[in-house]
Amino acid sequence: MDIKEYLRAKREIVEKALDLYLPGDDVEPKIVHEAMRYSVFAGGKRIRPILVIASAEAVGGNEETVLPAACALEMIHTYSLIHDDLPAMDNDDYRRGKPTNHKVFGEAVAILAGDALLTHAFGVITRCSGKVDDNRIIMVIRELSEAAGSTGMVGGQVVDILSEGREINHEELLFIHRHKTGCLFRAALRTGAILSGANDDQLEALTAYAEHLGLAFQIIDDVLDIAGDAEKLGKKTGSDIKKQKATYPALYGLEKSKELAVKEIESAVESIKDLGAAADPLREIAFYLGKRDS
Amino acid sequence: MDIKEYLRAKREIVEKALDLYLPGDDVEPKIVHEAMRYSVFAGGKRIRPILVIASAEAVGGNEETVLPAACALEMIHTYSLIHDDLPAMDNDDYRRGKPTNHKVFGEAVAILAGDALLTHAFGVITRCSGKVDDNRIIMVIRELSEAAGSTGMVGGQVVDILSEGREINHEELLFIHRHKTGCLFRAALRTGAILSGANDDQLEALTAYAEHLGLAFQIIDDVLDIAGDAEKLGKKTGSDIKKQKATYPALYGLEKSKELAVKEIESAVESIKDLGAAADPLREIAFYLGKRDS
Repeated sequence: MDIKEYLRAKREIVEKALDLYLPGDDVEPKIVHEAMRYSVFAGGKRIRPILVIASAEAVGGNEETVLPAACALEMIHTYSLIHDDLPAMDNDDYRRGKPTNHKVFGEAVAILAGDALLTHAFGVITRCSGKVDDNRIIMVIRELSEAAGSTGMVGGQVVDILSEGREINHEELLFIHRHKTGCLFRAALRTGAILSGANDDQLEALTAYAEHLGLAFQIIDDVLDIAGDAEKLGKKTGSDIKKQKATYPALYGLEKSKELAVKEIESAVESIKDLGAAADPLREIAFYLGKRDS
Repeated sequence: MDIKEYLRAKREIVEKALDLYLPGDDVEPKIVHEAMRYSVFAGGKRIRPILVIASAEAVGGNEETVLPAACALEMIHTYSLIHDDLPAMDNDDYRRGKPTNHKVFGEAVAILAGDALLTHAFGVITRCSGKVDDNRIIMVIRELSEAAGSTGMVGGQVVDILSEGREINHEELLFIHRHKTGCLFRAALRTGAILSGANDDQLEALTAYAEHLGLAFQIIDDVLDIAGDAEKLGKKTGSDIKKQKATYPALYGLEKSKELAVKEIESAVESIKDLGAAADPLREIAFYLGKRDS
């Protein structure tokens, strides 16, 4: 299969749906809707929503059914980026080659645009109603709330912020990566599977895939911050070192980190070995992300 | 009925449930759970969750069924206070007589604690599952997402922030009040009613009650900021004037504002005239809030 074409096609579908589900920038108060749209359409890879769709397909589901939930994942991801970039947090001026949300709209509106995206995400999931059993939607809302909350993504960001400027050990680094990135990857795969009526074995396999892929994704992020091409990445490299951030290369060196990422990619693919050809996109996505340079 | 005793008893039930539904402050990362609990248990009146319960009772429902949703409303309200108090927003040092969240935990943790409370709220609502039809829970999640989002509460805060230091007219003031306070009051009443199987007439009556009560509540807030007792309020008075905030007294004067509040309270009670004795707590709550001095 042509994974690049697959990703392009899915990205287009996701972006059309995001446009449909977000209030227009002519809706009052316009500035907050402009700010929400600015960051949502700042050119992400749409990995998380595509994983929702690919996970659904892997267990015999279809993209139409899970599209609202896929978009909800992307809104939650985007809100987390807006808030992470704030002066009180990572204080970043650029993201994906563009000025960060608070640089364009000011801190107050950026905080509120993030809040609104998070709030909106949970409403968007309810659009799955009528297509699947309501109980499955409720399960997904609970999963997402846990994955994004204080014992999930937000918890990872808390530990990340508190770890700046001091030495951390392997356990703490793993906690940060598993929570900041891992929880939402996990929720993406599980969301697609749950809404598509996956059985327990399938759900378990996809969860394991997600955990390995999420970790690989974050290790590669760390590696690219040191060894990547600033132009391709759309942001300055070396920012983790400057902020004395906890990263894999800081703890293991660059080469060992690359090896660890490869190992995680292999484990991800191994986890879904019992799923049939319908899971091929997930396998290809794993290999593709393992080789990404931006 | 003894409305003070009613409010005390319900407040106790709500606070026990909030304690149950929130992660303990021994759960990692502890600081964010401490921060969440610090603001949730900073001594609010629990008006919104009590309105959820009273609305349920008014249409023959019961508190046990709606308690998770009632707590979700309070978590959303609390997150909004934490974020409103931030330096980039209203920059308040005190709330309810205590240092604001960011004063105690720092800006980064305060932002994240707010994010986590909002995220957690949507998970908590799913705990209603099994007690009521799942479709009603989904309806409530959609209502809450709209009420709290960019066309609801967050939208009101955006316009409020942008209106500081410039003259605004009656329409803008009404927009701010209806959105910042009104939308969540409306959602509280509708949540209790929807989860309890209210019919269309009941839902309409309770919605009208909520809109009048929400406006009265905000006008009284404005009045107390000028004419209230700082000790009873637990915060300095006069802060709206200092910040050149849009308020009712600024636009209409103190006496006229008080009259308008009384009129809204009367309209609230009139709206539910067709509901029976089961709606007495709602009537008493309206009169009680009309006379509040803190």
